[in-house]
Amino acid sequence: MSAIGHQKDYATPDQRADAIEALKQRFGPHVETGTGIRRQHANTLTWIASEPPDAVVFATSTEDVRDAVVLAGRHHVPIIPFGAGTSLEGHVNAPAGGISLDLSRMDRILSVYDQDLDCVVEAGVTRGQLNRHLRDTGLFFPVDPGTEEATLGGMAATRASGTCAVRYGTMRENVLNLTAVMADGSIIKTAQRARKSSAGYDLTHLLVGSEGTLGVITELTLRLYGQPESIRAAVAPFATLDGACNATMEAIQLGLGLARIELLDALQIRAINLHAKLELAETPTLFLEFHGTEAATREQVAVFEDLARSHGATSFEVASSEEDRRRLWKARHEALWACREAWPGRVSFVTDVCVPISRLAECVAETEADIAENGLTAPIVGHVGDGNFHVLVMFDADNSSELKAAKSFANRLAHRAIAMGGTCTGEHGVGQGKMDVLEAEHGAAIATMRTLKQALDPLGILNPGKIVRL
Amino acid sequence: MSAIGHQKDYATPDQRADAIEALKQRFGPHVETGTGIRRQHANTLTWIASEPPDAVVFATSTEDVRDAVVLAGRHHVPIIPFGAGTSLEGHVNAPAGGISLDLSRMDRILSVYDQDLDCVVEAGVTRGQLNRHLRDTGLFFPVDPGTEEATLGGMAATRASGTCAVRYGTMRENVLNLTAVMADGSIIKTAQRARKSSAGYDLTHLLVGSEGTLGVITELTLRLYGQPESIRAAVAPFATLDGACNATMEAIQLGLGLARIELLDALQIRAINLHAKLELAETPTLFLEFHGTEAATREQVAVFEDLARSHGATSFEVASSEEDRRRLWKARHEALWACREAWPGRVSFVTDVCVPISRLAECVAETEADIAENGLTAPIVGHVGDGNFHVLVMFDADNSSELKAAKSFANRLAHRAIAMGGTCTGEHGVGQGKMDVLEAEHGAAIATMRTLKQALDPLGILNPGKIVRL
Repeated sequence: MSAIGHQKDYATPDQRADAIEALKQRFGPHVETGTGIRRQHANTLTWIASEPPDAVVFATSTEDVRDAVVLAGRHHVPIIPFGAGTSLEGHVNAPAGGISLDLSRMDRILSVYDQDLDCVVEAGVTRGQLNRHLRDTGLFFPVDPGTEEATLGGMAATRASGTCAVRYGTMRENVLNLTAVMADGSIIKTAQRARKSSAGYDLTHLLVGSEGTLGVITELTLRLYGQPESIRAAVAPFATLDGACNATMEAIQLGLGLARIELLDALQIRAINLHAKLELAETPTLFLEFHGTEAATREQVAVFEDLARSHGATSFEVASSEEDRRRLWKARHEALWACREAWPGRVSFVTDVCVPISRLAECVAETEADIAENGLTAPIVGHVGDGNFHVLVMFDADNSSELKAAKSFANRLAHRAIAMGGTCTGEHGVGQGKMDVLEAEHGAAIATMRTLKQALDPLGILNPGKIVRL
Repeated sequence: MSAIGHQKDYATPDQRADAIEALKQRFGPHVETGTGIRRQHANTLTWIASEPPDAVVFATSTEDVRDAVVLAGRHHVPIIPFGAGTSLEGHVNAPAGGISLDLSRMDRILSVYDQDLDCVVEAGVTRGQLNRHLRDTGLFFPVDPGTEEATLGGMAATRASGTCAVRYGTMRENVLNLTAVMADGSIIKTAQRARKSSAGYDLTHLLVGSEGTLGVITELTLRLYGQPESIRAAVAPFATLDGACNATMEAIQLGLGLARIELLDALQIRAINLHAKLELAETPTLFLEFHGTEAATREQVAVFEDLARSHGATSFEVASSEEDRRRLWKARHEALWACREAWPGRVSFVTDVCVPISRLAECVAETEADIAENGLTAPIVGHVGDGNFHVLVMFDADNSSELKAAKSFANRLAHRAIAMGGTCTGEHGVGQGKMDVLEAEHGAAIATMRTLKQALDPLGILNPGKIVRL
């Protein structure tokens, strides 16, 4: 099930063995070739089959990364940057073999500039680690893809976002600059710490979302925010999906300043009730969070409650304690695991799209109809404030027609979103899984992307077989 | 005084004449070659000498732009995109001759999606035109570089920002997607209208700020915002520049949500008093604007007043009427013209830098000392909420040592900002004027920028002699 496109003429297995030998000379015990560790580095968490690398190299510095890239280039061996392995579109697979370059040991928080509201971290620092480190400063880093364990380098490489993007933006808005190793071994810094700049081409944004195919991110300067004085959370079950979507759209148009607004459909609520021992009504539901001053969050909650009830919310409950609030968001963030538990033995085919918010209700409704028509088991959950939602098709891996049906469904969903002015992926990225729909979305711009890839990585060693076909 | 670097082997004058003939066949009266119009298309507004193009082509559609680019490429003639000609670093000059491609007649507002808070415009639409069009919708476009006449295409191409960036961001944050003509004549759309996407390389940000050197922007989708319920403006004169800078820094750290916070030094205040017939105290002064609900702006004004007084503000006056507020901002936005009026016969050497806000007071203080030491006449004015400030060195064009002194000063200022973790230009761009300091700022990353330029424009026809030397 390899998704690699036109495969480049990479090194033969013997030549790859030579490359590993050279890496061992340079990195000693930081090179590992055991089956277990190689498999772990190709864990796709979804329908895409694992394609393990030939070896794993653990980097501890930007210079290590440079040397690994240079050696890989010399032997014409692919090199696949690896953070925490939590991506969902086969980003860490090694379809042409090669080296998984694990950056998780680059885990130092280098500086926190509290006066400037930014910090500098190595790529392997996780978002949980950063926020624990920041706790006493009154600051926090808001991008929250749902796991504490995601590395910030990986999050930048995949342009991650998650539940807080509606207020604080995604990695696109929150990376001020990057240090990266390019395919030729050069070490570049993409920008300075200034909040804005008109100094030349925007290399920061070129690398954010490039999924390790244009360069390997080794350090990041990130924007930080003051911890809000007041945080309130609420749960609003709706009679219909349409009502929940329209309430979301109106809240966004009002500029209500929501920090999180998440939609879970009835099936997803059932799964998290089981998993997290909750007793939520099994109906389309919005999970909400409001950040601001005491007065501001109180006002936001009141405005949103009115709005929700006018769109058919059957109740509106504000989480009364921090414990309740944490329990709610933990349940939301474990949606994937809840589904795995609710349908044991099944594999989750996770896909996501993002549409202009005016089309959200329509896109979700058509998707629900598609799920019903095709008899799929497929909960919907989404960051609907951005127009972004996920579908988790739970399929039987032993039944090839189920996988085929899930693929067809995901393909229709992507095309539906594109036709509505949306995108085939709001936050999961392209990886191996969405190369075809990327072409459908971008048309002539694909050629521009290919030109960039070929110019910056002429040997094609950086994470080949992802994003664009060469 | 041409700033072009390694000049490519462009067409000879005879061959350029052939190219113009071919353009005339395609564009008829939309090609103009009169001296006046050619000069007007190389008006640099600053110290950089004008280098007029050989001809001006007026485009009225993306297809016109494509045909002009293809013809220019065929004859190996440079093509220089032109919006309103308000840039300040020689961006519209034609150091190797060629065609100025004027997009100002592409002035249609194509769609306003009020439910999605975005709109689609042609590149020649001005920001004034867009905001007049939006007035009755309750929406507005916030990026405000100070002139109503700047075209949105030009603003995207130069990554413009201005007074409202501290709250609403710059063109970097407010362009959702672009239609552009690339050097090979292909027409690409860089993204969809979805608020976020992880679908491939970020071509939008690659073109924003590329100053017409990588592609010609022909259409833009822009983010819009709800007009604030309440707008309040205030003026706070300070005893010292340091006090004004430190008050700014604290307001930003508090997350006070200022919509504008502008610093004018005593000399600049004197110039605008003269120009706008105001009677402001001639001391370092902050001009402020607050957006939000009635309650929120009232609270912000109160908090800021306390903060300003604690840093030595000698008074704090809230503009009592909309007329007063407009008069204040008009005066601020005419700072450049005020200086020209205050020092008649002198030329304004305008330069800008941007530093992390923690270094702002220090950077401004060192710059003031530098101005004094060198006996320059050089008002300071800046978007200090972003750490961004401008210096306008008023020099005598007939005295070459004054120009030399101004250049040395600007060079020291850029290096000072870079050494403080800042950038050589916060919003004016590189153009011809900052190619040297760009190299100092970016180091090895310049090679990456050069690779991008060469890959996307192998003939080097798109606005040559700007940003990077080839």
